[in-house]
Amino acid sequence: MDNKSRSRSPEPRLPSGIRVVNVGLDLLADSIRRQGHEIVTVDWRIPAAGEDQIIQVLKRLLGRHAERIDAANAEVFRRLDTASPTLNGVKTALDVLPAMTDRTILHPGPPLEWSEFCDPLRRSVRAAAMAEGWARNPDEAEKLVASGGVALDSANHLDTVVPMATAIGPSSPLFEVGFDNYKSYSPINQGPGKTAWFGVDEPEAVERLVWLAEVAGPILGAAIRSAGPIDVFAMVSQGLHMGDDLHMRTQATGNLLLRHLFGDLVETAPGGLAEFARFWSANHLFFLNIAMAAAKATTTWAAEVPDSSVVVAMTRNGTTFGIRVTGAGDEWFVAPAPPVQHAMYYPGFGPETSAPDIGDSAVLELIGLGGPAAAAAPAVAAFVGGTMADARAVTEQISHISVGRSSRFTIPTLDYAGTPVGVDIRKVVELQITPSVNTGILHKTDGTGQVGAGVAVAPIDVFRDALVALDAALQ
Amino acid sequence: MDNKSRSRSPEPRLPSGIRVVNVGLDLLADSIRRQGHEIVTVDWRIPAAGEDQIIQVLKRLLGRHAERIDAANAEVFRRLDTASPTLNGVKTALDVLPAMTDRTILHPGPPLEWSEFCDPLRRSVRAAAMAEGWARNPDEAEKLVASGGVALDSANHLDTVVPMATAIGPSSPLFEVGFDNYKSYSPINQGPGKTAWFGVDEPEAVERLVWLAEVAGPILGAAIRSAGPIDVFAMVSQGLHMGDDLHMRTQATGNLLLRHLFGDLVETAPGGLAEFARFWSANHLFFLNIAMAAAKATTTWAAEVPDSSVVVAMTRNGTTFGIRVTGAGDEWFVAPAPPVQHAMYYPGFGPETSAPDIGDSAVLELIGLGGPAAAAAPAVAAFVGGTMADARAVTEQISHISVGRSSRFTIPTLDYAGTPVGVDIRKVVELQITPSVNTGILHKTDGTGQVGAGVAVAPIDVFRDALVALDAALQ
Repeated sequence: MDNKSRSRSPEPRLPSGIRVVNVGLDLLADSIRRQGHEIVTVDWRIPAAGEDQIIQVLKRLLGRHAERIDAANAEVFRRLDTASPTLNGVKTALDVLPAMTDRTILHPGPPLEWSEFCDPLRRSVRAAAMAEGWARNPDEAEKLVASGGVALDSANHLDTVVPMATAIGPSSPLFEVGFDNYKSYSPINQGPGKTAWFGVDEPEAVERLVWLAEVAGPILGAAIRSAGPIDVFAMVSQGLHMGDDLHMRTQATGNLLLRHLFGDLVETAPGGLAEFARFWSANHLFFLNIAMAAAKATTTWAAEVPDSSVVVAMTRNGTTFGIRVTGAGDEWFVAPAPPVQHAMYYPGFGPETSAPDIGDSAVLELIGLGGPAAAAAPAVAAFVGGTMADARAVTEQISHISVGRSSRFTIPTLDYAGTPVGVDIRKVVELQITPSVNTGILHKTDGTGQVGAGVAVAPIDVFRDALVALDAALQ
Repeated sequence: MDNKSRSRSPEPRLPSGIRVVNVGLDLLADSIRRQGHEIVTVDWRIPAAGEDQIIQVLKRLLGRHAERIDAANAEVFRRLDTASPTLNGVKTALDVLPAMTDRTILHPGPPLEWSEFCDPLRRSVRAAAMAEGWARNPDEAEKLVASGGVALDSANHLDTVVPMATAIGPSSPLFEVGFDNYKSYSPINQGPGKTAWFGVDEPEAVERLVWLAEVAGPILGAAIRSAGPIDVFAMVSQGLHMGDDLHMRTQATGNLLLRHLFGDLVETAPGGLAEFARFWSANHLFFLNIAMAAAKATTTWAAEVPDSSVVVAMTRNGTTFGIRVTGAGDEWFVAPAPPVQHAMYYPGFGPETSAPDIGDSAVLELIGLGGPAAAAAPAVAAFVGGTMADARAVTEQISHISVGRSSRFTIPTLDYAGTPVGVDIRKVVELQITPSVNTGILHKTDGTGQVGAGVAVAPIDVFRDALVALDAALQ
């Protein structure tokens, strides 16, 4: 307000000051801000990018179907917000997964033909085949799989979630995590370095898989049996107050688990504990797979609610990105896997050497962890702009497309506000904001393994397609 | 600004709006705020509470002595901000403390006559005497100490720091932490429950002390020897980003240490590792003593700088609160130990059952941890008002009496600002702001142990007395 000039010329009666509200594109706002004035901006966007058919669909889903969908979403939210899975033990894949055969390998993401597998996942499948003893080298493994000698399936189809390019065979040890009849599974995290889950098929990656099955699995199984069921989300809630987002960074929560299991590990280890201890000490993502399995059990329960517009599966295989939405049935809505943006690379690597987004870990983003919890994690801030304000902006952005705020996953620096939970595809398509997924990046072609980490942005097309299918299903 | 009424009567030329700055007492500010107007408040206080002699002292110390003191303080700050102590091993008190005898017990705080010891510390000394085998029960121990059969000394005098009411005899295992010739010591934290450091002298408290010497000490000693020196402040810096203040809450940092030592513990433990593991799992303050010893080595180096107005020792024995200031020599400036304010009590306890502030742990507040790091710790926020804004206010308040900001202990949510380091007694006395100390609370009389936790505010008198002594020393 410029009161001084006004007092020199009181007539005509112009407003003594101007307060500006800018709606939509930021051009006007920027200009006014540069002149040193305050401005309120409304981040308005053309709904559904102005696409006519979709606007009609949205009118129905936000209009006459709204009550039905909102009621379903409230129940989905309740399940996502209250499911309380426990870590119950370690089991062998063949023993616990009904659809597993002694010649099956499970992979991340939506189902896929072998010919479409990206390079890192192809290497991981070969490593798994070698670890199972089906092949002596990558060439033999490649031929075996290419000839149809191995059944390939999406881990998601067997209540299992695997991070990055993890592939698992029938002898893989799996964490069992769940509640009531909702049991989900995830393998033991393979750790850093030359490991198959990073797309490496060298001998040491294969040896790691064998060691996990023969040594680490029995040790963890015995310790968890001795400790009794462990409330995963109680530990996760603490971890969020200790700088974890539980996706890109899980180490505070993993350390809580280590301290919890320390006595049981020492008392019950059948052998090899020293090597196991070195392995855990070096593994910052030990808890990732456990959190993922807990998220999977939670979304499986939520997926039983009909008519909802909430995403209950979101995953990538390095070739395609796919989601499922409860009200749209069992169909996978897929699009090409996006590149990972907001990335930091190891020296010598960059976008040109990066495989597209891969792994089942995006299930975490469906229950309020990972991207929605960015504001909790200084380590994530580094990838989204460098400051905690940038991290808070990620959490805030996701809240616009979410059903509600978690009552148990809270962020102290946001006055203990809950993380956003439950991705509503109506809001995603209307606002053209898709979920952010905190993730690692693998080398595209040469089996180097991890080359960086960053934030992937889900492709809008899968949400659009799911929206159309939901609309059709509700007619 | 009330532009509307003004436009009805443009003359006389009164200011079109009023912006108010309130200096000092908040009465005017509150009234204006209630009327819905903005106000800038300046937290001005009468310097040195208006005490004439002290104002003259301050004039000298901030006037003609300022350059000399500021130069000294800059060097003190440099030492407090750059000392890099490592955790080197576990030693027996009698072996490493030159002034230790086979009949000495060390206690927290400034030196004190036995008749002045508070109840919890008296109990802890009796427990230590029993653990040494000098007495079979508390009565025998009491008689032995009262008759002069045991030499009592301040742990601080022997480069040692002990938290709460810890008392240590010659057979106590001590962490050795330091750099170059600056070695400091602290015993292994005794853990929760019926333990002597909480002022308990029951048999299980004595057994814990014996177990620490016979089992825990050798296990930790072997593991640290195997792991090699551990950079304490590198771990502390990470812990601050994981919700620790490193005084009231140390568990993120402790868990980092556990993960670091896990392999060495398993490989080298001479026996009793399972019981040790259970002990560590249950001990949220395991890292406290290690951080304290690192702080002590750091302040010992800083204390060699002459002419400084920075506090280099700050400690309490439950009866007196004492500080040392480098420019004022080796003298302890003491006042009665304050009560712990901003406290949360276990059910059934309150201020009336609480012993005054006790322990050497306030050394942490001298190097930028504890109170200065409150803004880093959601767990501390609960004690100072409940929100992270309250915790930030504690950090901010301490910054007004500090020499600078840490370059290594940073707080992500303050845009990675460093914690305040180096308490300058000139600022303390001028502003009448004393350091806040995050601490536990012990039962006053009956040996119950810990009854709560809170924030103690250092008594102003010791800073005032030190200021006068510094002034005299500089003449």
